[in-house]
Formats: sequence, C-alpha cells, structure tokens
Amino acid sequence: MIGEDAMQEIVVDSAKLHDFARTLCENAGLRSEDGETIAKHQVLTDLRGVHSHGTRALPGYLNLILDGKMKPQPELQIATEGPSFAVVDGDNGMGHLASTLAMETAIAKAKTTGIAAAGIRNAGHFGAAACYSIMAASNQMIGFSTTNTGGASIVAPGGAEAVVANNAMSYALPIGDGHPIVLDMACGVSAWGKIGTLRMYGKPIPEGWLIDDTGQPTNDPDKGRFLAPAAGPRGYGLALIMGILAGPLCGGLMACNKTGDPSEHFFFAMNIASFTDYDGYVEEIQRGIGKIHTSKTAEGVEQAYLPGEIEWNNYDNYLENGIPIHVDHLRGLAGIADKLDVPICWEW
Amino acid sequence: MIGEDAMQEIVVDSAKLHDFARTLCENAGLRSEDGETIAKHQVLTDLRGVHSHGTRALPGYLNLILDGKMKPQPELQIATEGPSFAVVDGDNGMGHLASTLAMETAIAKAKTTGIAAAGIRNAGHFGAAACYSIMAASNQMIGFSTTNTGGASIVAPGGAEAVVANNAMSYALPIGDGHPIVLDMACGVSAWGKIGTLRMYGKPIPEGWLIDDTGQPTNDPDKGRFLAPAAGPRGYGLALIMGILAGPLCGGLMACNKTGDPSEHFFFAMNIASFTDYDGYVEEIQRGIGKIHTSKTAEGVEQAYLPGEIEWNNYDNYLENGIPIHVDHLRGLAGIADKLDVPICWEW
Repeated sequence: MIGEDAMQEIVVDSAKLHDFARTLCENAGLRSEDGETIAKHQVLTDLRGVHSHGTRALPGYLNLILDGKMKPQPELQIATEGPSFAVVDGDNGMGHLASTLAMETAIAKAKTTGIAAAGIRNAGHFGAAACYSIMAASNQMIGFSTTNTGGASIVAPGGAEAVVANNAMSYALPIGDGHPIVLDMACGVSAWGKIGTLRMYGKPIPEGWLIDDTGQPTNDPDKGRFLAPAAGPRGYGLALIMGILAGPLCGGLMACNKTGDPSEHFFFAMNIASFTDYDGYVEEIQRGIGKIHTSKTAEGVEQAYLPGEIEWNNYDNYLENGIPIHVDHLRGLAGIADKLDVPICWEW
Repeated sequence: MIGEDAMQEIVVDSAKLHDFARTLCENAGLRSEDGETIAKHQVLTDLRGVHSHGTRALPGYLNLILDGKMKPQPELQIATEGPSFAVVDGDNGMGHLASTLAMETAIAKAKTTGIAAAGIRNAGHFGAAACYSIMAASNQMIGFSTTNTGGASIVAPGGAEAVVANNAMSYALPIGDGHPIVLDMACGVSAWGKIGTLRMYGKPIPEGWLIDDTGQPTNDPDKGRFLAPAAGPRGYGLALIMGILAGPLCGGLMACNKTGDPSEHFFFAMNIASFTDYDGYVEEIQRGIGKIHTSKTAEGVEQAYLPGEIEWNNYDNYLENGIPIHVDHLRGLAGIADKLDVPICWEW
C-alpha cells in the first residue's frame, strides 16, 4: 500500500484491535453482536492494508451515532423479497449491519437458485466493499458488492461539475485453497481516502487525479474540487451504473440528487456449483494463476499479482506481526476511545 | 465515433444492410431465423456507429462457417438450469445465437425470481456485448453481458506477457421513454478493433495503448505486442474476472490457457420491479439525467452525455439517413457477398 513510513507508524496487534473496535461500538450503544460484526469487517480491512476504509473510519461512524444522526441499534427489515432477491431496510443504522444481513440473504438464496441479489436502502457507509464480496467467496460463490458514496464527486468526461459519486465495486472469486481473487475498486481515478492518506504522509497527488472547477486537471489538492473518472468514459459509466444499482434500484436517489441522504448498497452472490463442477472450476483457476504468477514482467517488476493479492500478502504478514498504523489514524481512534471511555490497545 | 471521413465512406441504408446480412447468413447455410437474429444484432451495432463489432465482422464469422470451423445450424442445448441460472451449450455455432437464447432465458427467469444469470460454453464470438444487455433493458430489466475474446492479449500491471484477454462487458439500464443507458467497454485501454479502425483511417495510435515485448509502452503498432489494461489494476482485474465469468464458471478455460478454443459468454438480467416501484425508478433516473445533461462542462465541451448516448445519437441519425461505412469495410462485405452469390446493397 501507499505511504508506509515506519517513523509515522505504530504496530498494533490485530486481535487487540478487534476487541478495541468491538468495545468502542458497544460503548457507543451498539449491540455486542453488531459491534463484533463491525470490528470483524474493519479489522479485516486494516489487515489487508486498506486503512482508508478500516478502523480509521470508525471514529467518523461512531460520532454519527453519538450525535444522534445514525441509530445504534437499528431494527433491520427485509422490506421485500422473492426467490432470488431481497431489499433490506437498514433503519438508518451502520451500513455494515444491513450489508452483512443482505449478503447472507443473497448467499442463502443463491444456494438453491444459482444467483441472488440483495439491495439495501436507508443505511450508513458500509466500509470496504470487499468485506461483503469475500463473504460469498468464503461460501464457494462469486460475490459482488457495490455502494454509493453519498453526493456526486466525479465529473463526466469533459465535465466541470460533479455528476456521479466515487462509487466502489468489488468482486471476489474463490480459488480453492488460498485467499480469493478480490477486486475492490473505486470508479474514480482514485479515492478521496487515498488522497487523504497521501496528504497525511506528505506525498504529492499524482497528475490527472483531480479536476478544478473549470473542468481542467490539477494536482493541487487545494484547487482540486472533483475527481476524474478512471479511464474516462469507463469509470464514469461504471460510477453512474453502480449508483443506480446502489440507488434507484433500491428505492434511493441518484448521486446528483443527493444532499446528505442515507446510503444504498447492492450485492449479489452466484453459486459456482450451480453452473459447473466446482472442483473443475478450481483446477482451471489454479492452472491460470500458476501461469500469471510465472509470467514475464518488465525490468524491475518482481512478478504479476492477482487482484487483491498484495492486500492478502499484507493480511498474512500483519496477522502474524501486527498491523503498522499511522499515528494520525491512531490519534483519531484515541479521541473516540477517550470519549467512550475505552482503554487504547497500543503503546505510544 | 473515431475516424469519420466522408471521402472514405459510402452511406448504406440500414434496412437494406439488414436484408443483405441476413441473406449472406442464409447463403452460408444458416437457418433463416438465425440469419435474422445475426443481422439484427450486427446492424444495430453499425447503427450505433460501433463498426468494429458490426457487419465488418460478418465476413470473418461466415468464413469460419464456410471453412467448416463453425457449425451453420447448431443445435443449442440448455446443458443445466435451475430457478435463476442456466448454462447453454452453443454447439460450436455463432455466438449470437446461443447468446440470444441465453439472455432470453435469463429474462424469462428473472421475471419471477428477480435476477437470473445464464452462461454459454462452446460458441463463437457474439458481436457487441451491448446487443444482449439491451435485450434486458427492453424488458424493463437491468442487463449485463460479458464475454471472453479468445487468447490473452493484455498484460498485468508491470507485465511483459499477455495474461488476460481484452474481454468486453456491458450494462444496459432502462430509463423509461428513450434509449437505455448503455455502457459497453473493453477492459483493455482500447480494443484491437479500434486500433484496426485507426490504422484503416491512417491515424496514429494514442500513447499508452500498446505494450512491447519487454513490457514498455509504445505507440508503434508494429512493435505493440500487447494491450495495456484500462486504468491499470482496475482494467486488469475486470479483464481477469470477466474471463472467469465467461470462462471457468461456464466450464471453459482461462484466457492464458486458451489456444483457439471456442468462446464462453455470460449474462444476467435483473427485474427492476422486483426490487422497487418501476415508475418511481424511472422518475428518479429521469431527474438525474436532466441534471447530467445540463451540468457545467469544460470550455469547448458541448455537454455531458450518458454512457452510450453518443452511439444512440448515431443510431437515430443513421436509421433515418443511412449508415456511413468505410470502403474497406464494404470491400470485405463485397468479398463474402461474391463468394456467397449475394448482390451488394450499395453503389460504389
């Protein structure tokens, strides 16, 4: 991941971070099992090195609860469902809770029908999209998740005004033994969280990421009002479409019509064994992975990786050796811990 | 679209082109109704200005039939199916035929279950991915289609060897009255067909599209061995995953394991009315479209377009005024027409 700098980091044990995160949630008024769910997703995300969407986001979530803007104990309801679909009403609780229920529902339905989709309306941010696609992959299914990210922040090609949100989408595909293939991408050329990380580490913003209010590219974070779409019309199109799946399809709004409204999320799970012999699928995938791993690379490039593989390498490393976390990130956690009377789980 | 140049084009009436294409198929030994299906998809694609995937591809398809490499009258079979899934065996016929059956099957199943997916194995190329996603959108559903494109042609980030194919993916979303939103994208930074179009029109290949055999970018089409993925890891990840959906999930191979094997394709359809009130969905989409169409643009940019809208503008124009087609494209059609004893439908 970007920005490692041991001088600015403290190594935190993942099990302790999990208990800490769960206790923070409990003390903010969440049910214990819901705190467990949130801690699991957020620490998984830190373990994979995606700190922008891991526990760094927890203070923001919990402050919404403490400020009465989000319900600590939502009563989740399946608003409508059928053989291969469901829509969950998140009751303005944390998005992780409704999302976990929605993906569990999709997985259960897909087991008998082959594929099932679940949408969510009226919920908060759900963390990293990969958390939910991975749930499907853990059940020998191909998982997909997407979400809107509130208001519009990305321009159309040639645009000078944000019209689509920097929506995330994730696929996870099981490979047999070993971590699944996981693509988790924003539709913009980057994510505001990553720009935040670069600023935090004092690094420059790459050319082409930011657009100013006349529609021109800029790398000055103070002038950059909007994000560029990834690969122009492709990222713009995907952002728009993800915002309709996680939006009007779930009874919600288009990004360009939002003003602080709750989020929608959307998921599907596809049961591989319905389509083909699962072992045959795994054998072919493994054969392909072997070729990719041993493929020729440009000078100075060690090897070709699968989508998500670098993050899983972080996971294996950080699970054993602890997670290196930026001190600003820990200061944020310390602030909310102080507010909620929870002892911190690291030493300054 | 790229490369319009009236000096190199002849305007062809779309209805005549349709009859011509159908007759070519019939004379190549296809059933009349199958010729009709293929003509419909290929001429729709020309009407949308995507000539690389329209009738320009027809001589290549029909020569495979004439050479005995593809069956003119495949016996399509649903190899396996359940409430929300099906796998179609294309019997080594033209991909358009199995794909049309697969999407029709997905649409029919989704009407009762909410979402349904259909994969295809053992078929030929299916033309433009958008043809099938649009079928779903014409049924008030959100459609998705993807395909593999034979062997690997795209490098992983940092790679000097092709490991994934330049797979296409398409979403189509109905908007009420008017043409659907249609994203139809390759996962590579461009498509070989577009590079072919640029060469045909004598235009340069943009920076960053091609990679040479040491893994370095090049804009010399004679040195470019591979395509770069769109937006680096995003396009690479999508290409890999689309090649698993349209691949091992359907009982087929990974791109890097292919050597001239038949293609796989993959589709799903999602019934909007299962998830939410269809009219409410349309109303919100229309409200969003209005904002996008009137959004501020950079100097010199006329307006922001929806994905696929420029192609639909071509469609409306070409349906009324005829389709401008490059003479090389027409020469290809004239060649196969001569072989199959079909009179051409334009004047040189």
